[in-house]
Amino acid sequence: MIRWPVGFKGNTKPALPFLMALFEQTLETEIMSQTKPVPELTVQNRVLMGPGPSPVPPRVLAAMSLPLYGHLDPEFVKLMDQTQERLRQVFKTSNRLTLAVSGTGSAGMEAVVVNLIEPGDKMLVCVNGVFGERMCDVAERAGAQVIRIDRPYGQVFTPEEVELAIKLHHPALVGIVHAETSTGAWQPVEEIARIAHENGAMIAIDTVTSLAGVPVEIDGWDIDAVYSGTQKCLSCPPGLAPASFGERAMAKIKARKTKVQSWYLDLTMIEKYWGSDRFYHHTAPISMNYAIFEALGMVLEEGLEARHARHLLNHQALAAGIDALGMKYFTQQGHRLPQLNCVVIPDGVDDMTVRRRLLAEWGIEIGGGLGPVKGKAWRIGLMGHGSCPENVRLVLGALETSLRDLGAVKSEGAAVAAADSIYTSARG
Amino acid sequence: MIRWPVGFKGNTKPALPFLMALFEQTLETEIMSQTKPVPELTVQNRVLMGPGPSPVPPRVLAAMSLPLYGHLDPEFVKLMDQTQERLRQVFKTSNRLTLAVSGTGSAGMEAVVVNLIEPGDKMLVCVNGVFGERMCDVAERAGAQVIRIDRPYGQVFTPEEVELAIKLHHPALVGIVHAETSTGAWQPVEEIARIAHENGAMIAIDTVTSLAGVPVEIDGWDIDAVYSGTQKCLSCPPGLAPASFGERAMAKIKARKTKVQSWYLDLTMIEKYWGSDRFYHHTAPISMNYAIFEALGMVLEEGLEARHARHLLNHQALAAGIDALGMKYFTQQGHRLPQLNCVVIPDGVDDMTVRRRLLAEWGIEIGGGLGPVKGKAWRIGLMGHGSCPENVRLVLGALETSLRDLGAVKSEGAAVAAADSIYTSARG
Repeated sequence: MIRWPVGFKGNTKPALPFLMALFEQTLETEIMSQTKPVPELTVQNRVLMGPGPSPVPPRVLAAMSLPLYGHLDPEFVKLMDQTQERLRQVFKTSNRLTLAVSGTGSAGMEAVVVNLIEPGDKMLVCVNGVFGERMCDVAERAGAQVIRIDRPYGQVFTPEEVELAIKLHHPALVGIVHAETSTGAWQPVEEIARIAHENGAMIAIDTVTSLAGVPVEIDGWDIDAVYSGTQKCLSCPPGLAPASFGERAMAKIKARKTKVQSWYLDLTMIEKYWGSDRFYHHTAPISMNYAIFEALGMVLEEGLEARHARHLLNHQALAAGIDALGMKYFTQQGHRLPQLNCVVIPDGVDDMTVRRRLLAEWGIEIGGGLGPVKGKAWRIGLMGHGSCPENVRLVLGALETSLRDLGAVKSEGAAVAAADSIYTSARG
Repeated sequence: MIRWPVGFKGNTKPALPFLMALFEQTLETEIMSQTKPVPELTVQNRVLMGPGPSPVPPRVLAAMSLPLYGHLDPEFVKLMDQTQERLRQVFKTSNRLTLAVSGTGSAGMEAVVVNLIEPGDKMLVCVNGVFGERMCDVAERAGAQVIRIDRPYGQVFTPEEVELAIKLHHPALVGIVHAETSTGAWQPVEEIARIAHENGAMIAIDTVTSLAGVPVEIDGWDIDAVYSGTQKCLSCPPGLAPASFGERAMAKIKARKTKVQSWYLDLTMIEKYWGSDRFYHHTAPISMNYAIFEALGMVLEEGLEARHARHLLNHQALAAGIDALGMKYFTQQGHRLPQLNCVVIPDGVDDMTVRRRLLAEWGIEIGGGLGPVKGKAWRIGLMGHGSCPENVRLVLGALETSLRDLGAVKSEGAAVAAADSIYTSARG
């Protein structure tokens, strides 16, 4: 125990005898500590094939271990500019306010809602999964008058359904999930955006699981606000939420009569840091910014279209294998996300028995169902760096073996063969 | 441009001719992309001696580049348990609800305030710097009836001043900054905590800059809620906010009549993820969790007391050098944080001229003043891994040279010599 001198509170005048005593104690503690070193962190190998985080390529992992800049360093500021530019390319937008919110995808959702909603504003939320539910919750906490429409989990909305609700309730904002991480449902949003605008509403979309896996066209579809996550098809660790705001959204934010309820997520202030002012708001998560910069670079190097095609091809191969195993997709046909395959667990098969074996024997993580789908479906992710033939073959082989040992399938090698035939055909 | 077939929305039946076309386009794009590769990120060398981020030791940087676990992986859950245990040791608390909030220090501040405040609750905020100001702003946004008391920037509050305000206003919560990052002021809080409790109030403290640099005793001082940051004396990249909540705080949260306004920061839900339920809330920032685990391990390996002594010794050496340069501390004597040295810029010296030269010539980042102190003071950080004799000597030499070239000092080598004499004396 260091004996701090009575009344000592960090004087600038060095009290030498005290410092000498401290130093001796330090040496003593150092010697003691050498006898009980804390071992360094090691991790086991995993093949991440759940709903995210997805596998992170070595180049992005390496960027995370680079020494840090300060958050106002001219070089870091340049990096932020370049990151914004890369985000704009990946979102396909020219929106000035395009940035990475310092939190995970859900912080992105909250940032969009609390900035666009003032207490009493009407928000129409389209719910067909856990993330639609979450949007309702976030909107209610922001004081929105929430109008909610529902589709069963795994199904998508038709433009007509949304139009009816918009015309009936005249919301200021429509919130809809482009890619439902809980069900793998792929919701078309372009037509809904058009209808929203025709009726004086703005539209905000959740692209957490879609961005860089399937086409996302913020300007092409005329989307007012969008958020995403880093740990899905961008193949970056979780911790940032890419987001972008169009002119209508900016006008609404500027015209607000009330303060944004969250200081941390208040875009009127964050904008001054990401904008040309570079006014300090909060300390940016530097290493995560390195990671997203590098992950976006890899996306652009591959090219968005090539990346979408890769996700689609690996999905087709997986789907052929799933079909060969006699398993069914949970998600509505024609609206299945290539990067998130939600398949029904066969009758009599226990969810956790299979998932535990996949993890223990092959190091494979697949996701269980969320909410009402819990125990009923698996979510197999083929996201970003993880969307590759090796992973498709690995998971199909592991699933077939596990299900065969439980008596749920009889085939041997049929699933992988079905996937291979897709790859062979695609190669011509 | 990929020609998506009309009506194609991700069918499971492979459309082979389409896939073949896709694959060809992919190859084409891949070949094209090889002609314009995106260069990998490289960074310049920096000696981080500002108010944070502080230098991150190689062992922590290496942890950031480990492959990821899923956020519900049994191994990751074990890691969270161990991280909580390490956080408890560093906070010196046995509080069950001790965790890392998925955001930077300011998200920690907001988490504490929005969970402990319901609309209309009275909160007394003690303001003697930018982070006290920020706490008022956050509290107002949470609907608190804010009572604010002020001390000039760089000064601390006496227990009597706070007592007077508590007895006059009967707040439910007192918020005070233990270590003001904007001024380097070191606020004693133990006596204030006692007074708050005697008068039926809870106390929340900001230890963003103090934790692991000077003693923080959450249980010993009977603190109800505390938050911190990772990028100061823990020497971990920014991106998480360690926080801890005592029994009174937990009781208040459980007795709330209103929902916490932030979904992302709602502890009643976050608790279920960090607690034994492991109920999914949001995707934890995995790599940042690796980093804090490793950074806390290094703190415990060194030992808190040895670490505090190290920070103190290097501060004394720096202070001797600052004195030798004829410069003055901005902060009230007897209340200067060893890890954040706020010194007055000499008359006639331009803030940015010196800081730009330090950065360009030596790679040193020191901080400018914040708020009303802007342009008037520098903030020299000796935090965590950065609190070492090399950095003390480097910055003193660089400052002396820069100031001498501007005609503000005449000495040559006096600052480093003064620092060295402290180290020599301390070694006996």
